[in-house]
Amino acid sequence: MAGDNTPLFQRVALLGIGLIGSSLALVIRRDNLAGHVAVYTRSAETLERAEELNLGDSYHASPAGAAADADLVIFCAPLGANAALAEAVGPVLAAGACVSDVGSCKRAVIDDIKPHLPDGVHLVPAHPVAGTEHSGPDAGFAELFEGRWCILTPEPGTDRGAVDRVADFWRRTGSDVEIMDADHHDQVLAITSHLPHLIAYTIVDTATELERDLQKEVVKFSAGGFRDFTRIAASDPTMWRDVFLNNREAVLDILGRFTEDLTTLRRAIRRGDGEALQEAFTRTRAIRRGVIDAKQA
Amino acid sequence: MAGDNTPLFQRVALLGIGLIGSSLALVIRRDNLAGHVAVYTRSAETLERAEELNLGDSYHASPAGAAADADLVIFCAPLGANAALAEAVGPVLAAGACVSDVGSCKRAVIDDIKPHLPDGVHLVPAHPVAGTEHSGPDAGFAELFEGRWCILTPEPGTDRGAVDRVADFWRRTGSDVEIMDADHHDQVLAITSHLPHLIAYTIVDTATELERDLQKEVVKFSAGGFRDFTRIAASDPTMWRDVFLNNREAVLDILGRFTEDLTTLRRAIRRGDGEALQEAFTRTRAIRRGVIDAKQA
Repeated sequence: MAGDNTPLFQRVALLGIGLIGSSLALVIRRDNLAGHVAVYTRSAETLERAEELNLGDSYHASPAGAAADADLVIFCAPLGANAALAEAVGPVLAAGACVSDVGSCKRAVIDDIKPHLPDGVHLVPAHPVAGTEHSGPDAGFAELFEGRWCILTPEPGTDRGAVDRVADFWRRTGSDVEIMDADHHDQVLAITSHLPHLIAYTIVDTATELERDLQKEVVKFSAGGFRDFTRIAASDPTMWRDVFLNNREAVLDILGRFTEDLTTLRRAIRRGDGEALQEAFTRTRAIRRGVIDAKQA
Repeated sequence: MAGDNTPLFQRVALLGIGLIGSSLALVIRRDNLAGHVAVYTRSAETLERAEELNLGDSYHASPAGAAADADLVIFCAPLGANAALAEAVGPVLAAGACVSDVGSCKRAVIDDIKPHLPDGVHLVPAHPVAGTEHSGPDAGFAELFEGRWCILTPEPGTDRGAVDRVADFWRRTGSDVEIMDADHHDQVLAITSHLPHLIAYTIVDTATELERDLQKEVVKFSAGGFRDFTRIAASDPTMWRDVFLNNREAVLDILGRFTEDLTTLRRAIRRGDGEALQEAFTRTRAIRRGVIDAKQA
């Protein structure tokens, strides 16, 4: 669709205007992806800020106000808000409308939103694998999705035309679109994203418990590796709370394997087993080469 | 010493010519920090490569050959090689010579090197907190130390003039020099560098055990956080094996605390305790702010 400048939707409603919502607002406006952007967010203060930033065409204190007459509604709030939002907007959605979202867990999104949608409304869940450690409407930028994956997880039997329209929309934000089963998505992302964030939060939390002088030195000499973890662990707390509450099983499963592997390495360190350590540290290089070959480095 | 272009040493011997050794060779040549650079490395192939890259002024198949007549000898091999190298060079070192190193653990360096040094030779251990995930003589670049910390851990009673000369040398590589007790260094770095590397190696190792199709997807969607860990876990396996063998106690101590904290978060996930998760994820933001304020971000 490169070069196509026709709006794909008449009216897009953004329910939530944090990092992802505001970035969507900016790319929609820049590339004329919709005729009208209606913004809803829970906090009056944030809604006002969104208006100051000129992120939308209309601003609404109720989700139904934003979603009325929309042909695309995108849930951009933390996962825990989805069920109540879906309940609020369901009654105003017209047959033929598309519903998408930006959540990091996909089974929970389907479970929370789908029961509230009237017949003829098409749910095409989406996960743009993009973000920064910043949050809020000021954090958005139109290029956020450029060259990043957006994973769609429509249920079998979802209207083909609706999937295509939502896929086109995400492609026109600059994303590469991949279609995947929701449960499989949750398993893959538990490994590539949820566990890394949990580990980063943990290691930084461990540092917060150090005595004050030592903590200052840890910050001062953080360039040795710790720094990268602090960046990951600066991500939005509410968003990540909801990720772990909504992808519990896949996260606990991979966390169990991780803990086993850590125990094995810990034993090797205690025993002074250099061979086991070197073997493990050599194995991991193959994955890095894979990441580089996949142009994800 | 900015602007000063007088060589600080007549002859610097580099024992080892990996990422750090080759970067030192390049910055010494660029900024005229020594009159002569003598290179030794264990592998004949690597020594030949160093010569092809024109990293030094002379190339030696024995550590004593490189160290003879040197007024500064820098140990740049993995930690496990230090004792044997020190034994080999000790007899050729003249009174007044300085010995430094680049190792990530400092107590072990003192224990391994000091017994082999003749009287009047000054040991000023150094840890440039700088690096990349690349290794070998081709990986070096003269700017590696620019704006990074270099921690010196001379023992009490070390000749003040020798400490000053070695500190000047490191400052002229572009580093900010900090002086610290060796044991304290090992405790701080266990947190800021050794534990993060161990965790990164572990999480990537966990991924290597996944079934093949899933592993490919993990690589494909690695941008969600995993990617950053693969970069850290691509560091030199021998170097890191030796770090864990040589800073065992401090690493096991901080690893114990980390494991406790991870267990606490795991329990919160299993119980669906959103409050505990959000509290932990909010606490960690203060550290990130500290890192940014310390200009280490």
